[in-house]
Amino acid sequence: MITSPDNDKLKTIRKLQQKRWRTKLGLFAAEGEDLVAAGGDAEFVLRSGADVEPELLDAVSTLGSGSRVIGVYRQRWAEPDGDLLVYLHRVEDPGNVGTIIRSAHALADATVVLGPGCADPYSPKAVRASMGSIFAKPPARAELAAIRARALALDPQAERDLAGVEVAAPLVLVLGSERGELPDGVEAARIPVHADSLNVAMAATIAVHDVAHRMAAHA
Amino acid sequence: MITSPDNDKLKTIRKLQQKRWRTKLGLFAAEGEDLVAAGGDAEFVLRSGADVEPELLDAVSTLGSGSRVIGVYRQRWAEPDGDLLVYLHRVEDPGNVGTIIRSAHALADATVVLGPGCADPYSPKAVRASMGSIFAKPPARAELAAIRARALALDPQAERDLAGVEVAAPLVLVLGSERGELPDGVEAARIPVHADSLNVAMAATIAVHDVAHRMAAHA
Repeated sequence: MITSPDNDKLKTIRKLQQKRWRTKLGLFAAEGEDLVAAGGDAEFVLRSGADVEPELLDAVSTLGSGSRVIGVYRQRWAEPDGDLLVYLHRVEDPGNVGTIIRSAHALADATVVLGPGCADPYSPKAVRASMGSIFAKPPARAELAAIRARALALDPQAERDLAGVEVAAPLVLVLGSERGELPDGVEAARIPVHADSLNVAMAATIAVHDVAHRMAAHA
Repeated sequence: MITSPDNDKLKTIRKLQQKRWRTKLGLFAAEGEDLVAAGGDAEFVLRSGADVEPELLDAVSTLGSGSRVIGVYRQRWAEPDGDLLVYLHRVEDPGNVGTIIRSAHALADATVVLGPGCADPYSPKAVRASMGSIFAKPPARAELAAIRARALALDPQAERDLAGVEVAAPLVLVLGSERGELPDGVEAARIPVHADSLNVAMAATIAVHDVAHRMAAHA
């Protein structure tokens, strides 16, 4: 039973709240029973009351409510390969990055590729929003130009509807920044909307479902 | 300039954090420039530094960061009518309720109908998640049995895919509780998934897009 806040495992968990340390150590922390159950092989897991005094675990938790269990895991990075990929361009909100990893996994077993300027998918908020998909379907890191697949950007200003675009594997769906920026020179299509209020995670969810469904129907 | 925390407007804003008071007064509060810009006719709006001392407005804010502007508005409730409706069955998370109001508005100008046991759509979290759609497309309250439209539930356990179900107006899409409960005796279809990880807001977003798109194509 850990009874000192100077314990090395507790210190590691605290460090992993910072991107600098996550990158340096190649590790990340996941909090809560659901995530730890999804997590597979951990570097270590600390359970409140069993491995560590509850108030010491709460002190290194990123949740306002504290945590009953925190696991520390090695970061994994996939290759940017597959029939369907989702490329994120400067998506800075970790909740959106995590949600898109979850959607892409759930709807199409698709890898999310993080371009430069995206939030760290191993940040606490992104890990939480991924709901375990960060373990089942680790993200990739690459520039869009390095991906060998036809790129199709989701752009509210595009003239063609996504539904009118023929899709075939391999395809990379490109989602822009929260400010609407997209990489230059990429073919674009739009999701028809009544009101301009879709965020990047909703657009990604719809596009992955639509494209994966049509790819499966044609396969 | 309001300089006392005992000011009636500040007291009203504080009361509106509680559902009991929101219901009693028929009012709700919206925080932040984007929401207030979307808000139309307010009962009153307080701007930090102009109408009220900043620390007094921060003290009645529901945001950790405080607020620069808070508007108070009359709650509006729609009738459960339209070509496409979204009925929520015991969706207790206010963020999901707000997100679904936003999706239904953005993708199909569809009214969201709240059945018994749903989170209050005028709670601070739901209003924030709706991103202004709460103003543009106020929700309705009704039992499912009172809606005169064919009901189609989204159920991961259903045998038919949503894409294989013919859709025609009027239709009400039924989304279940976060624990997976659905009303009894409703026709069901599923969204095909690779991993069982869609939450109710993602399922609603996909279903509204899919159904609205097919209804528009057939119209």
